[in-house]
Amino acid sequence: MANAFVTQPPPLKDELDIVIPTIRNLDFLEMWRPFLQPYHLIIVQDGDPSKTINVPSGFDYELYNRNDINKILGPRASCISFKDSACRCFGYMVSKKKYIFTIDDDCFVANDPSGKAVNALEQHIKNLLCPSTPLFFNTLYDPFREGADFVRGYPFSLREGVPTAVSHGLWLNIPDYDAPTQLVKPLERNTRYVDTVLTIPKGTLFPMCGMNLAFDRDLIGPAMYFGLMGDGQPIGRYDDMWAGWCCKVICDHLGLGIKTGLPYIYHSKASNPFVNLRKEYKGIFWQEDIIPFFQSLTMPKEATTVQKCYIELSKQVKEKLSKIDPYFDKLADAMVTWIEAWDELNPQGASQANGKA
Amino acid sequence: MANAFVTQPPPLKDELDIVIPTIRNLDFLEMWRPFLQPYHLIIVQDGDPSKTINVPSGFDYELYNRNDINKILGPRASCISFKDSACRCFGYMVSKKKYIFTIDDDCFVANDPSGKAVNALEQHIKNLLCPSTPLFFNTLYDPFREGADFVRGYPFSLREGVPTAVSHGLWLNIPDYDAPTQLVKPLERNTRYVDTVLTIPKGTLFPMCGMNLAFDRDLIGPAMYFGLMGDGQPIGRYDDMWAGWCCKVICDHLGLGIKTGLPYIYHSKASNPFVNLRKEYKGIFWQEDIIPFFQSLTMPKEATTVQKCYIELSKQVKEKLSKIDPYFDKLADAMVTWIEAWDELNPQGASQANGKA
Repeated sequence: MANAFVTQPPPLKDELDIVIPTIRNLDFLEMWRPFLQPYHLIIVQDGDPSKTINVPSGFDYELYNRNDINKILGPRASCISFKDSACRCFGYMVSKKKYIFTIDDDCFVANDPSGKAVNALEQHIKNLLCPSTPLFFNTLYDPFREGADFVRGYPFSLREGVPTAVSHGLWLNIPDYDAPTQLVKPLERNTRYVDTVLTIPKGTLFPMCGMNLAFDRDLIGPAMYFGLMGDGQPIGRYDDMWAGWCCKVICDHLGLGIKTGLPYIYHSKASNPFVNLRKEYKGIFWQEDIIPFFQSLTMPKEATTVQKCYIELSKQVKEKLSKIDPYFDKLADAMVTWIEAWDELNPQGASQANGKA
Repeated sequence: MANAFVTQPPPLKDELDIVIPTIRNLDFLEMWRPFLQPYHLIIVQDGDPSKTINVPSGFDYELYNRNDINKILGPRASCISFKDSACRCFGYMVSKKKYIFTIDDDCFVANDPSGKAVNALEQHIKNLLCPSTPLFFNTLYDPFREGADFVRGYPFSLREGVPTAVSHGLWLNIPDYDAPTQLVKPLERNTRYVDTVLTIPKGTLFPMCGMNLAFDRDLIGPAMYFGLMGDGQPIGRYDDMWAGWCCKVICDHLGLGIKTGLPYIYHSKASNPFVNLRKEYKGIFWQEDIIPFFQSLTMPKEATTVQKCYIELSKQVKEKLSKIDPYFDKLADAMVTWIEAWDELNPQGASQANGKA
């Protein structure tokens, strides 16, 4: 690995929370027990708050249902989606830890090509603890990995890299396809284990999936808002995408990195493509305007913290996207509400983030 | 694979030339015989022209030594490097084929993780025949590969992709490191076979290695100039890097794509790091100015062909880089000479390229 990397131990359990949005019993955790049991879980229960969610014994957790969210946030609870896994971002907000790992409840432990179970969390932590290289592409992928380095022609001044804010993991078995692709290719399975991690270059957008995702809450937390989806909203399944686009432009502006690739999880079950199509179809249109918006967006120099960037972004969303649909006007307001709620729940975190960014 | 991909047969042997720069007998071709023998070779003999280069029987080839280059190009031969593998670009110029595959004579056939010999040329052709996706990152890598597609959140309007101009292959065993890294890590070997191909995003530079490289001569040929290196020049080992930076900015401007990843070759022998350090050390300094130059470079709208882009680039090199060292003044002139020589040898190709770009 490149010399700039300083080996660090994986964070202790008091530095990381695992956030799981769910509407059902968390039996899937049994399989994850060897890897996840040492960590604290934040379970965000979606849907009917009177339903009981069973958590396998031995796991340390706190659970929030809609009543809890309403109670904690008051009127600001309006920024947290209902009947959509976008509600998970409430867990990011109430966490007090430096790192978050979020995972869907239909994701199981994957095996690598040698048959060994993949400790997804360990790989995410590795990704987050070593730098990203968004300013120049390294053809041997992550130069900070054991057995790799920067190749000939990589500028020496760029080899320190930048802090990594987000680690985006992938999925074996059911790929994360949109409804039209699901409908066209119902039998397609992802069987290719690509043994690499790479930095998404600066200036390039990517589709961030929330199924298997980790991030440094101190560095980027306030931008990890999953938007308004589900109940009462005209759109679903764009929650993680929205967060990804926002995070990417803010990371690019603040000199932070986003990695994608390893670790894989095993995604067990495709969601219903007909239901998905109903949720997605407006997003499929809107996206054609949203992407150019994010691609051409610039942040003012004064936006020196994640919060300031996010508020600036909300202004630009209101100004430039609300002509697509009144939804974006509402979303822009919710983005502001989200930051207010974040700062209220994280008075220290807010100032920490201000100081660090 | 994504629907936009139209399966095409690999090109016939009259559509591709293999360009090999060398100073020695081409025994390494024995190992490549099953894959390369059907194709025509253009051998560019470097160094002493009186030396005889043995080519294994059964290969169809033409060979050019320095005397041939001088005779064919006359005074314009000055743009072709001597005593440096940069001389290979003469082969690109005299070829009349649509595709070029260039390979170093210390590169052997790699094995994939199952132990199967990798047909590098076949993979390069696959890479060149299906589109690139430089405008948005696909997290499951090349969406045009069997078993893969565009993931949720990838804008539908960008799924056609753009034509692929360059396919950059990688190396198992001896990685392509610079001299300082070679000196620090003499024992490092690349043993990781990363089973993927990906598009280098628009706006991102990469270190293009000439060891295992293929390109579409009609689309990008005139930009594939390997500069002034070796005998009489203050620098070496930046020939392919220079070509890569020039090609990347021109591809970005013209809406063409560059892929990297598969295929691997097995790189047998590290070059001498002390010799390499002597060749590289000015480049290591200069590069710190060259990279920002390429990163901030813009092409005028009128630059609608590769040739026009390249002439424009030569002007900007003269204007902005010659203050680093008089070498860049000479290089800028050589870039113009190269285009003149290219157009002279490719009167039809030149107009073809003009029409297509």
